[in-house]
Amino acid sequence: MVTIAVDMMGSDLGPEELAKGVLMYLEEHGDLKILAVGDQKRLSSFQGNPRIEIVDTGEHVLPMETSVLSFLRDKQNSMYVAICLVKEGKADAVVTAGSTGGFITGATLLLKNVPGVSRAGFCSPFPTTVKGKSTYILDIGASNVNKAEDLVGFARLGKIYAELIGDIQNPSVYLLSNGTEEGKGLDESKEAYEILKNNSKVNFKGNVEARNALDGTKDVIVTSGYPGNIFLKSSEGMALNMSAMIKRVFKRNLFTKIAYLFCRKGIQEMKETMDYKKTGGAILLGVNGVAIKTHGNSDARFFYYSMALADKMVKNGVVNKIKEEFAPDGEEKK
Amino acid sequence: MVTIAVDMMGSDLGPEELAKGVLMYLEEHGDLKILAVGDQKRLSSFQGNPRIEIVDTGEHVLPMETSVLSFLRDKQNSMYVAICLVKEGKADAVVTAGSTGGFITGATLLLKNVPGVSRAGFCSPFPTTVKGKSTYILDIGASNVNKAEDLVGFARLGKIYAELIGDIQNPSVYLLSNGTEEGKGLDESKEAYEILKNNSKVNFKGNVEARNALDGTKDVIVTSGYPGNIFLKSSEGMALNMSAMIKRVFKRNLFTKIAYLFCRKGIQEMKETMDYKKTGGAILLGVNGVAIKTHGNSDARFFYYSMALADKMVKNGVVNKIKEEFAPDGEEKK
Repeated sequence: MVTIAVDMMGSDLGPEELAKGVLMYLEEHGDLKILAVGDQKRLSSFQGNPRIEIVDTGEHVLPMETSVLSFLRDKQNSMYVAICLVKEGKADAVVTAGSTGGFITGATLLLKNVPGVSRAGFCSPFPTTVKGKSTYILDIGASNVNKAEDLVGFARLGKIYAELIGDIQNPSVYLLSNGTEEGKGLDESKEAYEILKNNSKVNFKGNVEARNALDGTKDVIVTSGYPGNIFLKSSEGMALNMSAMIKRVFKRNLFTKIAYLFCRKGIQEMKETMDYKKTGGAILLGVNGVAIKTHGNSDARFFYYSMALADKMVKNGVVNKIKEEFAPDGEEKK
Repeated sequence: MVTIAVDMMGSDLGPEELAKGVLMYLEEHGDLKILAVGDQKRLSSFQGNPRIEIVDTGEHVLPMETSVLSFLRDKQNSMYVAICLVKEGKADAVVTAGSTGGFITGATLLLKNVPGVSRAGFCSPFPTTVKGKSTYILDIGASNVNKAEDLVGFARLGKIYAELIGDIQNPSVYLLSNGTEEGKGLDESKEAYEILKNNSKVNFKGNVEARNALDGTKDVIVTSGYPGNIFLKSSEGMALNMSAMIKRVFKRNLFTKIAYLFCRKGIQEMKETMDYKKTGGAILLGVNGVAIKTHGNSDARFFYYSMALADKMVKNGVVNKIKEEFAPDGEEKK
């Protein structure tokens, strides 16, 4: 039986919308229990459901723009309480649509890193130009600056994730850099390159430039947190800009509106290729527990996939595998 | 009279294509002289032109993937010679389509920074979603890591460039960051924020996230070189990926091909909005001379705009203005 702690608050669309996603997933999957953390008054659709336990936190919600201090100030906010349920062993996974800053602070401070992990990596699957093919990129912003040791850790975490969740055998691992040659990149990245090329456990393929990162031929891409975050947001920004421009093309006049009807199937396929909703969200890899951050404007469908991801991560034993792989020599895994 | 040293080699399309662009520009503009550096045998269209002096460097061309050492090894390569013409005062500007690494190394080492400039910034105009509106971003990769002092310098360089070349009054200046709040970003960026908000000469507007950088409302964006390079290449990569997908939509079948005819005008407008060819290339700002790097696959039209940019930079006195503004107190400008 898998137990998921769900922060029902903090989404732009409100807890009622998230509740729909939770119920959709529960209906289809029997071996699951939900600890729903949030304002009881707004979770009426959960009342009387034997597989859902409501943990009432009233109106205590973490604001979207949050700091470490504000996260710790009100320990009754729904995100704090939901993460604690994992910390206390009452849940296997936590899912939230709330503040990214709060999530990273909370999951790092409360769940703590698995022994042997120098830094947890915030990992997101990115849609590529190849339909159905994701590339896993980490860190996209849990840290700003990383050491070579962290980057090597991200490579190992990403490999485990791609194997167990992406179902990829011997995933290819790249370092994001400003050139493909070996000597390119930040100092920590050059040092990590040296270590990774001698690591027989990681299928390390060298550097990749941001330009070619999403061509569908890469499984895992490792980067320091700050440039990773810039990569995420530049790609997202350009995708949104181009989509807006394409919409304008089809809305110009009656003829272009008719043209849209001819192109609808292709546009639909393009949307599906670029669809990040099915990915379920971003994951903080390397902490003691499954911790998933979904998009702030997640709708029921998106949240359904977040439930699926949490469920799969628990069932496939991602955290245990990380504990095994990172256990310092001679120590038993926790 | 403006004299431009042109590295005729190093373009993917060959010197013959670049020569067309040079001739187009020369025909329209009388007060201009060209020092054409390259393989004389391949510059027959320049023979006998009284306004073009060929500096024959034979087959000495800098390879595209180059290092500081390889740049310095063959001092007869066309790029080295072209940059030296500016250093020696024989030309006012240098334009090259060759190796970016070689260009940055060469222009930095040979031309040297203007007194008071801590680091030269590689600056590129980015097309935005607003047709005809560029945002100037620097540094996009002359350095990897920068100090706060460098970032403040980039802000001042970007402001001068936006005023004299972008014809923008009191340009808005932003710091690229991973959040819009004041405390966000790398340490050097936070420190630069403090300095810039108290600098009455720069119209500093705070942080901008990569996602919103190209919405057409920003004039100058300042970043350390490494994340700037990631920003450039992620945006470029996503734009290329989306363009390829749109092409596929219209090529699906006979109906979509007809639909394309209806949409052609809109697509054309979208292409023009995103067109980076008219921008002329990227500029190394802060060195003693006008130094422009155009795209490696520049065609005649692109190169025509590079000539126009070099011409405008010289005529509008960008380098002199930088010397004035950065002159240490009490010193005469050079």
